[in-house]
Amino acid sequence: MNIKITGTGSYIPTDIEKNEDFYNHEFLNSDGSAINAPNKVIVKKFKAITGINERRYAKKHLNTSDLASFAAEKAIENAKIDREDLDYIIVAHNYGDVRHDSIQSDTVPSMASRVKHLLRIKNPKCVGYDVLFGCPGWIEGVIQAHAFIKAGIAKKCLVIGAETLSRVIDPYDRDSMIYSDGAGAVVLETTTDEGGIITHDSATYTLDEAHFIYFGETNNPEINDKRRYIKMYGRKIYEFALTNVPLAMKSCLDKSGINISEVKKILIHQANEKMDEAIVKRFYELYDMEMPEGIMPMTIGTLGNSSVATIPTLYDTILNGSLENQEINKGDIIIFASVGAGMNINAIVYKH
Amino acid sequence: MNIKITGTGSYIPTDIEKNEDFYNHEFLNSDGSAINAPNKVIVKKFKAITGINERRYAKKHLNTSDLASFAAEKAIENAKIDREDLDYIIVAHNYGDVRHDSIQSDTVPSMASRVKHLLRIKNPKCVGYDVLFGCPGWIEGVIQAHAFIKAGIAKKCLVIGAETLSRVIDPYDRDSMIYSDGAGAVVLETTTDEGGIITHDSATYTLDEAHFIYFGETNNPEINDKRRYIKMYGRKIYEFALTNVPLAMKSCLDKSGINISEVKKILIHQANEKMDEAIVKRFYELYDMEMPEGIMPMTIGTLGNSSVATIPTLYDTILNGSLENQEINKGDIIIFASVGAGMNINAIVYKH
Repeated sequence: MNIKITGTGSYIPTDIEKNEDFYNHEFLNSDGSAINAPNKVIVKKFKAITGINERRYAKKHLNTSDLASFAAEKAIENAKIDREDLDYIIVAHNYGDVRHDSIQSDTVPSMASRVKHLLRIKNPKCVGYDVLFGCPGWIEGVIQAHAFIKAGIAKKCLVIGAETLSRVIDPYDRDSMIYSDGAGAVVLETTTDEGGIITHDSATYTLDEAHFIYFGETNNPEINDKRRYIKMYGRKIYEFALTNVPLAMKSCLDKSGINISEVKKILIHQANEKMDEAIVKRFYELYDMEMPEGIMPMTIGTLGNSSVATIPTLYDTILNGSLENQEINKGDIIIFASVGAGMNINAIVYKH
Repeated sequence: MNIKITGTGSYIPTDIEKNEDFYNHEFLNSDGSAINAPNKVIVKKFKAITGINERRYAKKHLNTSDLASFAAEKAIENAKIDREDLDYIIVAHNYGDVRHDSIQSDTVPSMASRVKHLLRIKNPKCVGYDVLFGCPGWIEGVIQAHAFIKAGIAKKCLVIGAETLSRVIDPYDRDSMIYSDGAGAVVLETTTDEGGIITHDSATYTLDEAHFIYFGETNNPEINDKRRYIKMYGRKIYEFALTNVPLAMKSCLDKSGINISEVKKILIHQANEKMDEAIVKRFYELYDMEMPEGIMPMTIGTLGNSSVATIPTLYDTILNGSLENQEINKGDIIIFASVGAGMNINAIVYKH
């Protein structure tokens, strides 16, 4: 018996926020001081590092759970299953539903309960819960679903990653340009088909790293409303990720017994293009190899960093043929890998 | 191989909020109208239904993750394990860290990452994540840990329930008197010892029930700040719980093959004394039996409803001999059962 993704779906918000839309922002350093550069230069530099041209924001009337339900509908349809047969709905997110006009995270009921309600699933034995694990939450949800199936308490699981980071960003912070909204979902189930999840690995680094990504006040010292936003120590995260993610990926791959030459695609969390490239390059260096061209499909240029949503969205986008020059074929070995708040890292070696 | 709780710990906040402390509140109906009764009568009626005399509030400088870490320290000590051997830290909660002077839930990093940081655990293979599942979150965390152990990806797990509901209550709402703060934790691990988790059951009802417990505005129509608080439709919850919880408990017990006469204790989520009693009574009625005296230890009178924290706190309180006329002995059959936001229900049949 293999455990495999049998359906994918994603929801990409329709509102496009271009880099030029930030030209009239007042960006400040984290200490409140002015940045000695015009916005055009700040944005250009931002683009050079992150690879982001534009990102997507959810429409005002939509919240994280709505996005999650849209992606879920597509994944269920794609998997051709009866939704009433689902044993679990697992939703990875980090901020819950944050209404466009609110600064509060609404997490009761859970996103999973909301999604189940929106999907009109009746079966009470379909258990819905949310997992908070930073950006790697969607991969972690897949690992948990995999464990439930292996433990014999589930056969079919819906795992969703959904986030509306546009609702928790400080307009005075350059880093705000990174963040995006979106949702991706998969159906994971037992199958007699070849392939599926081969190995997985997770890690949580907290001794020094717990607060590398945190909730902090605006960079504008004139605002004293105690409101907090998503914040990060970018340099520390970069160094941390570069040191630890390639090793985690290697450990996961080596455990699978699969040769690196067989790896066809690496679907990495769309955090920051330069960082992602550096991680994958270093991963190949661990095997004394050069990074193969096209190994690492990217959507960050147009979709930004939508946290837990990036990987399932990327996977779905490739499978439905919407990503130029990228395809995944039956039997292909893929590595899913992520890093984010916690700090958490995880990876899955998967045979499509 | 059995999977058993080998250590328990709890943290009961030191600040006591008595029923009399609410005498000067202005309570309003949910439609904003005045309640035709003096506060003394409102409080007396509240006491008669819920059984609550007083509840605990966390000190201002403490947050949910602090409470969680205090309970965790005790559980680790009680289990006599090396904390570096933990494979998982699972924290059930519903609102994250809500600072006393803030209306925002802070969930990044996760409570599990914060707890791991506070416990000074170095091992990166100890994975920390949060589960959101309403009040039944702690039981669900135990069920998930059990699955990870069965699936072979964990041996020792720390499962915590922690909440500071005092930070999300509407002072104009009578229901606010129910809520309390607290934390409870257990270490779950494989053991050659007899007993442990025998059967478990979970369910999520969302078709009509998803928003029985929700995030809503104050009952005071003069306040228009969009701030939201924990809110519930008490009557609907009562009817829902009375219909479904006894059946879930019966289904779980019958699956275990254990005769009802062997059940020594029922540790039920401390939601509301009258409701809890009605649930357990009806559970016994399903077996044509009267509810045995002392079967259902209660702490709600002095500790209120601290959501995910009530059951592990109750369990720890009995085991450490702090609950009068209550004890649990080796070999005793216990049922853990909970119901809450989602609406979620779960139960575990456990041999101590």
